[in-house]
Amino acid sequence: MTAGKSNTTLPIALDAVGGDHGAPPNVEGAVLAARAGVPVLLVGDRVRLHGELGKHPGSVSLPIDVVDAPDVIGMDEHASDVRSRTGASINVCTRLVKEGRAAAVVSMGHSGATMASALLTLGRVKGVDRPAILTHLPARAGFVTLLDVGANADVKPGYLAQWARLATVYLRVIEDRADPTVGLLSIGEEDHKGSQTVIEAHGLLRELHGKGINFHGNVEGRDIFQGTTDIVVTDGFTGNVVLKLAEGEARVLFGWVREALGSDLKTKVGGLLVRGALRGLAERMDPSTYGASILLGVRGLAFIGHGSADARAVKNALLRASRAHEANLIARLEAALAPGVG
Amino acid sequence: MTAGKSNTTLPIALDAVGGDHGAPPNVEGAVLAARAGVPVLLVGDRVRLHGELGKHPGSVSLPIDVVDAPDVIGMDEHASDVRSRTGASINVCTRLVKEGRAAAVVSMGHSGATMASALLTLGRVKGVDRPAILTHLPARAGFVTLLDVGANADVKPGYLAQWARLATVYLRVIEDRADPTVGLLSIGEEDHKGSQTVIEAHGLLRELHGKGINFHGNVEGRDIFQGTTDIVVTDGFTGNVVLKLAEGEARVLFGWVREALGSDLKTKVGGLLVRGALRGLAERMDPSTYGASILLGVRGLAFIGHGSADARAVKNALLRASRAHEANLIARLEAALAPGVG
Repeated sequence: MTAGKSNTTLPIALDAVGGDHGAPPNVEGAVLAARAGVPVLLVGDRVRLHGELGKHPGSVSLPIDVVDAPDVIGMDEHASDVRSRTGASINVCTRLVKEGRAAAVVSMGHSGATMASALLTLGRVKGVDRPAILTHLPARAGFVTLLDVGANADVKPGYLAQWARLATVYLRVIEDRADPTVGLLSIGEEDHKGSQTVIEAHGLLRELHGKGINFHGNVEGRDIFQGTTDIVVTDGFTGNVVLKLAEGEARVLFGWVREALGSDLKTKVGGLLVRGALRGLAERMDPSTYGASILLGVRGLAFIGHGSADARAVKNALLRASRAHEANLIARLEAALAPGVG
Repeated sequence: MTAGKSNTTLPIALDAVGGDHGAPPNVEGAVLAARAGVPVLLVGDRVRLHGELGKHPGSVSLPIDVVDAPDVIGMDEHASDVRSRTGASINVCTRLVKEGRAAAVVSMGHSGATMASALLTLGRVKGVDRPAILTHLPARAGFVTLLDVGANADVKPGYLAQWARLATVYLRVIEDRADPTVGLLSIGEEDHKGSQTVIEAHGLLRELHGKGINFHGNVEGRDIFQGTTDIVVTDGFTGNVVLKLAEGEARVLFGWVREALGSDLKTKVGGLLVRGALRGLAERMDPSTYGASILLGVRGLAFIGHGSADARAVKNALLRASRAHEANLIARLEAALAPGVG
């Protein structure tokens, strides 16, 4: 295979042995994505991946290739291992992107290792000090876009301003939002409320308003599910807590609803009648719907998913990666962040 | 009225004109608490409060007195105003506590002003650098105790360690938990995960394990609703975001459940059958159940509630304040934090 020239035919590199469940959900997700027209490179132990592919009748005719990688960074190993273990599947994936042989990398494996490998191999978009992980949460009106959800536990005010610009371009390019609003997560709506870092970031974002971003001002925890703004910018510590709390709370609340519906005969009968409606809701809260989060700010497309991702999540991540590539996301991020622009 | 000697007869000072709805829910809550045996001092404009009391037949025979305060700090004014406005209702309340004429102060008014007034008038418990706001959230097994939820946007590692000790004493004294577990909110379970502040705090908490606290280790956002630990310690920025997100998410999710149940005839019928069960759940999520949060670490009992508190929340806050006083909470916090003890 040679470096692709056409955006549409370049495959997505999938870290096909990464994640809690190893190859099976990755390969199944790749088959689903390939059937939907997205070519995939399965990266990992060649024998194992061919074996797994063999379980999917008809997969030989799909646009799926296998690229051998002898090593894999386990979920409990150190992210810094990516420096020395060049044969690790995630490193093979990011090199494929760097060399123009793949359009993007998708991994459900060790997220720290994916971040480190992407950053080391692909570098940063000019004007970006630190890449951030961008994800979506369900909200009253569709979804809200949140970043950083875990790449940077400690931040400087300038990072938050850069992330606001990156996320704005992302939503324009990928979700067709013309002028998405940006909220800065804080503990009060007033400009002077928040930590020192947030107060300084507020000033920077205020200056950027109308010059590349549409700054709404501070938002609070309750605004996230309200969907008060399209984008919520925060540090990677708070964002990670928000993401995991939101998922955990939904799981516990829906569990309580299910319990409440099975508590006696009357509610059991009622429960059967409302089951379908509630299943639709649970799906709305399911992280698999979005597939994976994007590592925004590296000079190449990198998507990071849940270790527990199922085939549907893998498929959706591959489709999303393909869409970002077709839309020329990286070039458009670079153009927006170029010095003198904004 | 003279300084009370008996714990049980000392009244609770209520900032009766504070909050989004002014006197009505405060006075009604005081009437409900007084009927339950808790004496209350209503602090605020005397004429208005007597007028409001007049709407509750039989309130004259209840243990409720009115203490005049000519001024009130509005919800949109500055917390620092408590320094100059000595006649503000919240300042009158904290002075009543300081002078031993009230057992505790409860306010649904300006939370920043309540914190500032309590800190200025009552001072800090020895060994505590910064007071924290402690509150409860529903969790799988009852509730989880979270602090700080907003008093300190910027923290030092030592604060988190002090708060773990304060919260441990609080749960022992007020909730009869013999040896409550403490979790440090972070973005990974491993000891080395988190911001620099959290990593350092982890070391301090590890040292305190078995010496005054039962340290479980790091917990993540998803552990809050799981109730993995009895106590979750975090900075006031993250804690405030968590609290408001948790409340906001519950409101939106239950709204979706209600919508889903009214979507067609079948689910409408089912919805009627399950209505009671869901109402029970909504109540479990209602912040009024706990009434108010305690400002832990000041040398006196101070409770801070939602501006939107209803009479039930006011009543529950007054009962909780009374319980804390009867249990000698402040003396026990001082004993636990005294130098050389641990």
